[in-house]
Amino acid sequence: MPALKTARVCIIGLGLMGGSLGMALRSGQACQQVIGMDVLEPARAQAVAVGAVDEIADTAEQAARQADVVVLATPVRAIIQLLARLGSHLPPCLVLDLGSTKAAIVQAMAGLPGHVQTVGGHPLCGKEKAGIVVADPALYKGATFCLTPLERTTAEALSLAQELVRAVGARPLLVDAERHDRLVAAISHVPYLMAAALTAAAGEVAAEDPLAWQLAASGFRDASRLAGSDVTMMVDILLTNGAHVTTATRSAMRRLAQLLAAVEKRDEKALRPVLAQIQRTRREVYP
Amino acid sequence: MPALKTARVCIIGLGLMGGSLGMALRSGQACQQVIGMDVLEPARAQAVAVGAVDEIADTAEQAARQADVVVLATPVRAIIQLLARLGSHLPPCLVLDLGSTKAAIVQAMAGLPGHVQTVGGHPLCGKEKAGIVVADPALYKGATFCLTPLERTTAEALSLAQELVRAVGARPLLVDAERHDRLVAAISHVPYLMAAALTAAAGEVAAEDPLAWQLAASGFRDASRLAGSDVTMMVDILLTNGAHVTTATRSAMRRLAQLLAAVEKRDEKALRPVLAQIQRTRREVYP
Repeated sequence: MPALKTARVCIIGLGLMGGSLGMALRSGQACQQVIGMDVLEPARAQAVAVGAVDEIADTAEQAARQADVVVLATPVRAIIQLLARLGSHLPPCLVLDLGSTKAAIVQAMAGLPGHVQTVGGHPLCGKEKAGIVVADPALYKGATFCLTPLERTTAEALSLAQELVRAVGARPLLVDAERHDRLVAAISHVPYLMAAALTAAAGEVAAEDPLAWQLAASGFRDASRLAGSDVTMMVDILLTNGAHVTTATRSAMRRLAQLLAAVEKRDEKALRPVLAQIQRTRREVYP
Repeated sequence: MPALKTARVCIIGLGLMGGSLGMALRSGQACQQVIGMDVLEPARAQAVAVGAVDEIADTAEQAARQADVVVLATPVRAIIQLLARLGSHLPPCLVLDLGSTKAAIVQAMAGLPGHVQTVGGHPLCGKEKAGIVVADPALYKGATFCLTPLERTTAEALSLAQELVRAVGARPLLVDAERHDRLVAAISHVPYLMAAALTAAAGEVAAEDPLAWQLAASGFRDASRLAGSDVTMMVDILLTNGAHVTTATRSAMRRLAQLLAAVEKRDEKALRPVLAQIQRTRREVYP
């Protein structure tokens, strides 16, 4: 396995995440070459235009054929399909992905031929908008980048993955795939579902009285932001992390029902200490 | 009723909202004098230090005694208590408030002596943090500022309130108090309760596995932001707008339950169109 500096990196999926990764690698001269591939022609053209890739391949197989590192940067279920499809076409290389759920992907990685090294990856950064048009070489700067090695992952392969993470300015964090999925359900997937429910409910009110949107200030804007996320990406996340998402959403609904019960009863004695504790929690996490 | 330029403005409550209002009025030389009052000594001292007031009065009664405009900038239930308390002590003047719910306040305003003019107010701006230490003369710039006149409000008094709103850079929006409260329940108070429930549920997960907070990215930060709001302010809002908050929260919970049901059944056909519609709604409001 070569050092990153001399490696040919192939990125399949040239959206916000893949495009930004290519830009960061190339602007930092972190590897020898970046070969890109996307099923959409406009994304391929834009990737060349913004310098996210050195060259474009016609197919995923062709892109991966001569790569030392293959980065899968598509939605989660497309990653799983690509792993199955590319399997026997892959040279000895490191396969890393950028998907937001990890257990299903790591399971699919375990089925790859023995000459292929694999590490699951999840960079904790992103934007409300999707696509290479909003790609940014600084996207990964300072972000935590989860890495979920498999039992079969060698120390050398994991080291190369960590080198790539650091090369784009992120901080690698090793975490078990199952543990990762349980935690991001509470910290990322439930926030998405709540933002969606909030936006849907406000939309019903605004359909009857359009003045509602004029009363929306920064609070609503921030609370609803995740509802603008890419739908295909989110559907894949929810469907590949359904069990943890269900448990975590039920927990949040229980807490909301408790707060609502106190409001309904105008029960200040119940409401105030709970809200004060929640405020302390929020302020401890974001001082 | 004098023009704003020659008016003595009294601000009772020198927190983020009252302090920022005083700073904006004084830095724009919009009125003759700003007299301030707060029950907390540090807020009074800081108000003088940052130039939010020309002078400090010892009591609310004293502050209001010679004022042409009295601005009540405390939490909602304190505004209602002040209206009752100040009543007969008030000179002929305009009383305006900055509270986030309007029906209960407008009802209390209706009980003031006939020589007092009143307009309810709600500026749609704020910050996650409270207090005059985060006050900012630009806070009101570009914000929508709801005004809820009473039946007894004269055109002259309403005009003076609008002049004050424009003087601090905000845009006045006339709206009925009941309609205001119904709309802000969906667009502001439910987002707060959901952010609180989300933070509480994530806090439970993090109590068992502190790694959770390390996985929190900008999505969680924004979705949970309102949970850091001032508790006294929010308790007053929830308790004075309980009926609308209850209806709107139930509506959001129904939408969340629908989304959860689709996730539990891994029902992509149900999930995708709903999330796509919600994404369109969000993107229409925030293009």
